[in-house]
Amino acid sequence: MDLREITGPEALKKVPAEKLNELCDEMRAAMLKRTAAHGGHVGPNLGFLEATVALHRVFNSPVDKIIFDVSHQAYPHKMLTGRMEAYLDEDKYDSVSGYTEPSESVHDHFIIGHTSTSVSLACGMAKARDLKGEKYNVIAVIGDGSLTGGMAFEGLNNRGEQGGNAIIIFNDNQMSIAENHGGFLGSLKKLRETKGEYPCNFFKALGLDYMYVDEGNDVHKLIAAFEKVKDIDHPIVVHVNTEKGHGYKFATENKEPWHWSMPWELETGKAKREFGESINDRTAEYLLEKMKTDKSLVAISAAVPTFGGFNKARRERAGKQFVDVGICEEHAAAFSSALAKSGARPVWFVASTFLQRAYDQLSHDIAVNSSPAVIVVTASGLSSMNDVTHVGFFDIPMASNIPNLVHLSPTSEAEYFAMLEWALTQREKPVMIRMYEKGAAAPTCPVETDFSEIGKFQVVKRGKKVALFGLGTMFSVAEETAKALKDMDIDATLVNPRFSGDVDTALIKDLAKDHDTLVTLEDGVIAGGFGEKVARVGAALGLKVIVKGAKKQFEDRYNPRELLARSGLTVDSIVFDLLKE
Amino acid sequence: MDLREITGPEALKKVPAEKLNELCDEMRAAMLKRTAAHGGHVGPNLGFLEATVALHRVFNSPVDKIIFDVSHQAYPHKMLTGRMEAYLDEDKYDSVSGYTEPSESVHDHFIIGHTSTSVSLACGMAKARDLKGEKYNVIAVIGDGSLTGGMAFEGLNNRGEQGGNAIIIFNDNQMSIAENHGGFLGSLKKLRETKGEYPCNFFKALGLDYMYVDEGNDVHKLIAAFEKVKDIDHPIVVHVNTEKGHGYKFATENKEPWHWSMPWELETGKAKREFGESINDRTAEYLLEKMKTDKSLVAISAAVPTFGGFNKARRERAGKQFVDVGICEEHAAAFSSALAKSGARPVWFVASTFLQRAYDQLSHDIAVNSSPAVIVVTASGLSSMNDVTHVGFFDIPMASNIPNLVHLSPTSEAEYFAMLEWALTQREKPVMIRMYEKGAAAPTCPVETDFSEIGKFQVVKRGKKVALFGLGTMFSVAEETAKALKDMDIDATLVNPRFSGDVDTALIKDLAKDHDTLVTLEDGVIAGGFGEKVARVGAALGLKVIVKGAKKQFEDRYNPRELLARSGLTVDSIVFDLLKE
Repeated sequence: MDLREITGPEALKKVPAEKLNELCDEMRAAMLKRTAAHGGHVGPNLGFLEATVALHRVFNSPVDKIIFDVSHQAYPHKMLTGRMEAYLDEDKYDSVSGYTEPSESVHDHFIIGHTSTSVSLACGMAKARDLKGEKYNVIAVIGDGSLTGGMAFEGLNNRGEQGGNAIIIFNDNQMSIAENHGGFLGSLKKLRETKGEYPCNFFKALGLDYMYVDEGNDVHKLIAAFEKVKDIDHPIVVHVNTEKGHGYKFATENKEPWHWSMPWELETGKAKREFGESINDRTAEYLLEKMKTDKSLVAISAAVPTFGGFNKARRERAGKQFVDVGICEEHAAAFSSALAKSGARPVWFVASTFLQRAYDQLSHDIAVNSSPAVIVVTASGLSSMNDVTHVGFFDIPMASNIPNLVHLSPTSEAEYFAMLEWALTQREKPVMIRMYEKGAAAPTCPVETDFSEIGKFQVVKRGKKVALFGLGTMFSVAEETAKALKDMDIDATLVNPRFSGDVDTALIKDLAKDHDTLVTLEDGVIAGGFGEKVARVGAALGLKVIVKGAKKQFEDRYNPRELLARSGLTVDSIVFDLLKE
Repeated sequence: MDLREITGPEALKKVPAEKLNELCDEMRAAMLKRTAAHGGHVGPNLGFLEATVALHRVFNSPVDKIIFDVSHQAYPHKMLTGRMEAYLDEDKYDSVSGYTEPSESVHDHFIIGHTSTSVSLACGMAKARDLKGEKYNVIAVIGDGSLTGGMAFEGLNNRGEQGGNAIIIFNDNQMSIAENHGGFLGSLKKLRETKGEYPCNFFKALGLDYMYVDEGNDVHKLIAAFEKVKDIDHPIVVHVNTEKGHGYKFATENKEPWHWSMPWELETGKAKREFGESINDRTAEYLLEKMKTDKSLVAISAAVPTFGGFNKARRERAGKQFVDVGICEEHAAAFSSALAKSGARPVWFVASTFLQRAYDQLSHDIAVNSSPAVIVVTASGLSSMNDVTHVGFFDIPMASNIPNLVHLSPTSEAEYFAMLEWALTQREKPVMIRMYEKGAAAPTCPVETDFSEIGKFQVVKRGKKVALFGLGTMFSVAEETAKALKDMDIDATLVNPRFSGDVDTALIKDLAKDHDTLVTLEDGVIAGGFGEKVARVGAALGLKVIVKGAKKQFEDRYNPRELLARSGLTVDSIVFDLLKE
């Protein structure tokens, strides 16, 4: 079978039924070959391949709308909707994103990369359809991992009330990124065991109709099921029991590491490049050591335990002192707050992009209550995750403007651990620390151990005329710039601000005596960030301030080096700006 | 019975059982008298009075911990935990806040004012207890309105898995702020009708044990029920069927307006002060008129329909073009995004403080997708809600730093409507507009109708040396300052920035030719806000910039006039700062 002939859903509908299994096999092989070479989501796409073929066989996309939650399972959908070549031709592998992307195809309706939103989005689409008097199917696909996010409950609950055509494909692969969590897993298991007959049905309790499909990787069974619900006049959940990683031995035998993978050898399952011990690993070991003597220390994850270095073996070592709450950052934040207020020592690990999901809890449950919770932010800054839905540019403007919440940006791994140690010792404030992910080189900035004077900057070198403020990972650029300026006989002051959201006003007033220009560098967007605060204080004193950081805009699949250069975060750009007048 | 003798839970436990109904009656009378004189939450406290007496009779607070969701039902709790005088003595009415407040009493564990967090907080407290090997009951109280917030689901789901002692009192009064919403209401009704026997039980589906109490305003029945679950070794939900407003005729007959009330006459139920038509009313009328010709226009509320002026009569007029989704801001945001992307015209009304609950959806579901959703922010700025949990200081730093999302601050009601009209016409960008809540006086700033040039400021008067940027409601202060400066022969430039999160760089460059000082005024905190952006642009040009707004700190039950003065947002303070060097 030539996959190139599958140019879209119409072509798929013409494939003889008896050829569908062969089609699935070939799609699986192509998808695996591409993902092994390119890296990407493995298990989610393998598990939902047959269901995607069945969806496009039964429904009429793009008239009927299919919305994939988190959309990391959308590779088969892309293959079937005019983008097959991106999975067949090596030189076209980069022509598609890893998520749904409306600019690629009319079959994609939203850019999506965070979980738990598909039912709400589908609910809005269906409401628009009904207001306009149109007729088509609106289908939301959502997994059991995504369902742990409260927003999915909100969507399902509203969906149950709104009525009208709505089909929710519940892709139950019995996994989140790692193993799934929550009390509702028990009743899902009973639903699977009873083939959907168990009366205590979560979906029915929300006013939704319900259907169960046990063989969720059997394309023919799926087609039969979807035929039954097509054009339905009310909301229904189709519970599909799938196998994550289906059809690839390594991925089914060891699901967690095969959720997403860097490039690997298809035959052996071995990574093409071995990564050594990471700062995440070292952080986990540091905490595991502390846990031995402090039984109240508890590491928390919202479904991505490896952000904190807690792989399976370390989770076992931590025992009750590690909690994976599932994909629910709001709960993770409030849970952390209450632990800290009750005398325990929580450390919540969360990626910058997912921290966004708990703004209100950071403010209302943590900061208003001055709860000494500790939050470690991973994957932050301009050189981290680079899909538009996952960029780590915004944690400084988002979190550091919340009163009471101390946001720290370390300049080295040693300083990161010093900050963590201090955060876990003090009892006054919530503390958020960006994990230092640039390697364990010896620090060039002297490492202090006390951060209790909030907003007190560290003056590494006192010079005159020009002061360089290099926040966190940008300190090294400030340092290099100082060296370059020295060659031009400019003796610049070099500052490690440490605090991302507070300004050392006394220092700036002092610098104003013999400086005329301040330069700030930060690893994120400038809007609402660190440099603008320095600009506010400096500009009130009549100082010139040059604020360097990324523009307030989203970036997609960007090159970090290019973005840093475009943002003026290079020695040359800073020197140029300083000398240009 | 002398209520003053009830000095705490121990005293309550000594009241003879046959006197408890009398106690409830007297507490109810005192609470009503105080609330009628002072204003506050009426229905929630009346409905949960008996349950609170029963809780403190059975459990041993503060050893046992009771956490009230949203805590607007905590007046009886305050009365029973050493704060009775605040409900008896008129001159002490202001000695307690309207929410739980740890600084008032050891019986209060968190400052809480937003919904849906109590189960997560209780989950954290219980985990701390178990890690430390302590023994006590942890009780979370949560209403059926709060349960529509997805975070409550997250907490319940994690609670079901964590195990250990946990008692969740589900206060089912069959109301949210207005009528409650969601598909799960059907199964709750069946649970009430079957006295808890209906098998499709939402709580059991989450792995929680369950008990039903039908007579939730019978203190003796409640005591008997709570005795049964005291010291339980696993999580249980006690579903208590209560009547919102119980014991006060007006409040039970017409629940929505009696959720919260300004001072009123106890005997007649009449408000002490009549309020005329508000901007909220005028906004609803404006939209209702538009809805006649645009069937795709839909007003959305997350459980507070009056934010958009949609009282019951107007909701009926709007019909399908009004949706109350319940207390679920995340869903409301994504629902709005999908409506807008599908060609409908959603307008979501949300208070500044509750907007915080949807940061990720504003970014991920709306802004990344350039969805032309319209969001109207009510109760924003420094002169609005003044409980620490409800302040409206943060919507500018929170939302205006999100790329693609246009945040507009009108200087008058006429400009607000012009902005709304423009927002509903354009199809390019998500637009957020602060409702202008300062009255319908004729605008002093010429009202423009096109806002499509993002970041283009309106120069109302071109002068020299000093330029005043008065954002939104602060424009009038800038205007008054310009007049004061004129008397001192300073011909200041007066600017209406309009855009809260974007800067007119070209204008500032132009002003730099004949100005040396810029002054920015904004109605919110300065950290991450508007003025710092102007400072960034101005300071790069060597201009002096004075940024005026509130400090980055929480404020509780503050006097707005005092806060404005303390923040330097007065003519005198600005003139002083300008003349001081």
